[in-house]
Amino acid sequence: MKRLLFLFCFCASQLMAQNSLKFANIGSFKTQGGKTIQNCKLAYRTFGELNAEKSNAILFPTWFGGKSENLVSNAGTMIDTTKFYLILVDALGNGVSSSPSNTPAFPDITIRDMVNSEYALLTQKLHINHLYAIMGISMGGMQTFEWLVAYPDFMEKAIPIVGTPKQSYYDILLWKTEWNIIEQAGKNPAARKNAMRQVATVHNLNLATPDYYIRTEQAENAYAKIQKAGDDYVTNNNPENWICQIKAMLSQDIYKTSGKSLAEMPEYIKAKMLVIVATRDGMVNPQSAMDFAKVVNTKYVELTGDCGHLATGCESDKVKKAVSAFL
Amino acid sequence: MKRLLFLFCFCASQLMAQNSLKFANIGSFKTQGGKTIQNCKLAYRTFGELNAEKSNAILFPTWFGGKSENLVSNAGTMIDTTKFYLILVDALGNGVSSSPSNTPAFPDITIRDMVNSEYALLTQKLHINHLYAIMGISMGGMQTFEWLVAYPDFMEKAIPIVGTPKQSYYDILLWKTEWNIIEQAGKNPAARKNAMRQVATVHNLNLATPDYYIRTEQAENAYAKIQKAGDDYVTNNNPENWICQIKAMLSQDIYKTSGKSLAEMPEYIKAKMLVIVATRDGMVNPQSAMDFAKVVNTKYVELTGDCGHLATGCESDKVKKAVSAFL
Repeated sequence: MKRLLFLFCFCASQLMAQNSLKFANIGSFKTQGGKTIQNCKLAYRTFGELNAEKSNAILFPTWFGGKSENLVSNAGTMIDTTKFYLILVDALGNGVSSSPSNTPAFPDITIRDMVNSEYALLTQKLHINHLYAIMGISMGGMQTFEWLVAYPDFMEKAIPIVGTPKQSYYDILLWKTEWNIIEQAGKNPAARKNAMRQVATVHNLNLATPDYYIRTEQAENAYAKIQKAGDDYVTNNNPENWICQIKAMLSQDIYKTSGKSLAEMPEYIKAKMLVIVATRDGMVNPQSAMDFAKVVNTKYVELTGDCGHLATGCESDKVKKAVSAFL
Repeated sequence: MKRLLFLFCFCASQLMAQNSLKFANIGSFKTQGGKTIQNCKLAYRTFGELNAEKSNAILFPTWFGGKSENLVSNAGTMIDTTKFYLILVDALGNGVSSSPSNTPAFPDITIRDMVNSEYALLTQKLHINHLYAIMGISMGGMQTFEWLVAYPDFMEKAIPIVGTPKQSYYDILLWKTEWNIIEQAGKNPAARKNAMRQVATVHNLNLATPDYYIRTEQAENAYAKIQKAGDDYVTNNNPENWICQIKAMLSQDIYKTSGKSLAEMPEYIKAKMLVIVATRDGMVNPQSAMDFAKVVNTKYVELTGDCGHLATGCESDKVKKAVSAFL
């Protein structure tokens, strides 16, 4: 019994050690906008073992507003960590890595900056010069697209999930609305924090389809849910980090950053790709990813349910199966 | 030539006289909430001639944020005014009829209050005790549903168009978000007015489907369009009238106001009905109207395009044809 308990504790502590948040200081980091972030820090978590050939690493950066902590139960169940070395990374600006909330005079950043900082983490700190795969969900999918054009030879495979290579009219309308709601609150930090209450409901209006809400929620609970969502956002989401990541997303356009047209992409992109979109996504419009997948030779999976942007949760079995088969 | 000119001027002035905005003072109006609006005024416009039997009147109240002026080119082309006497009415709270913007201490109102004030206008001022039809779009459709249960014997026919008998979870989420954005601005009237800038984009995110925006707009024009929509809303929409009408919509539930269940409606409702919904409506959720049309014996038309709540514009030919055949 004692031995069993010891084994359990040992295994649990191993898992904890793997789970545990690590920080890498990548030094002076120069942004695309020409500013420098001194002592730029990236937070990350690793799972599994890097093999001797260093050929089994998968990078999985965070979604908008997300932390590597949130990815554990998600990416963690999607990737076989007995086989792969999984690196979850907190994207710049998310409040865990260097961000407006923890760094004075934090400059505007782009999705390419997120990618470049992750490149520095891998090559300088983890001494990994090649990835087996890069993948991510939502803003993690945007980073995946950007990785493909920033470092086309760096990965074997890439899986952008409900991400986009380029922001559409509707994406801009949504992100600018959330941003403006915070700015409307003025300069007072408490007022800006409180504006996250309204950002919460705008965000939720677009996270899933109306059909999903009608199917899963009762009208009489709406007011309590609105209150709760607001409370959660005010507590958990810093408005300056929110704007920072929105600005990064708004800047995204792989055709601009690469100087390559869609027609030139099949030649330019080296990795094998699996593109996963949610056809009813009201948060990250799927059209640009669909257009991309039509021209570039990729595996392609559509999530068609009423969950919209939340389809990776609602249709997680389909996602896991497709990812597993592709990897 | 002079005679022709005279005839033209005569006809044009007749049209103008019909078009012209009239005001009726319906006196002390008691709201469902127990408050009184003194000298309550309803604005309206009439087209065509009331026949001797007073059997050809059609009432068409305004949509949310709309004025009878906006209905002229809409209802005006939908209804044959050589045959029908069309009455466009500015719903209470819309800024033309008695509203927060023109009446001190204007109380909260409900959709039923809008209906009761229109009933008073018809019976007391226009001496019309029976309608051939009541119809309306969006909040005008909500008023149509409410009319059916408030005065079941008052009309021969009723056409709610992209309206709803009852607010869903998603409707509440949307209207409460717009309301909260104004409240977030605090008590300063200029700040509340300026909050309409953010209300504009939240509204637009839900007016049509993402597909519609992707199809009709260019991403590079998004920022200018957001600015323009904000300018328009700040200029044209009073925040207190906006909240007043939102509160009215949020209160709407014909099952509550009538005390009748959906199963009891076929017995209770006397008018012949044509229910028109937009299946992809992200502003007024169509589910409640669909459920209603399944149980109550109505004619039923679905608008299925990507315009969402704007379908009555995009699919106006289909609407006109259905309305014309039904009337």
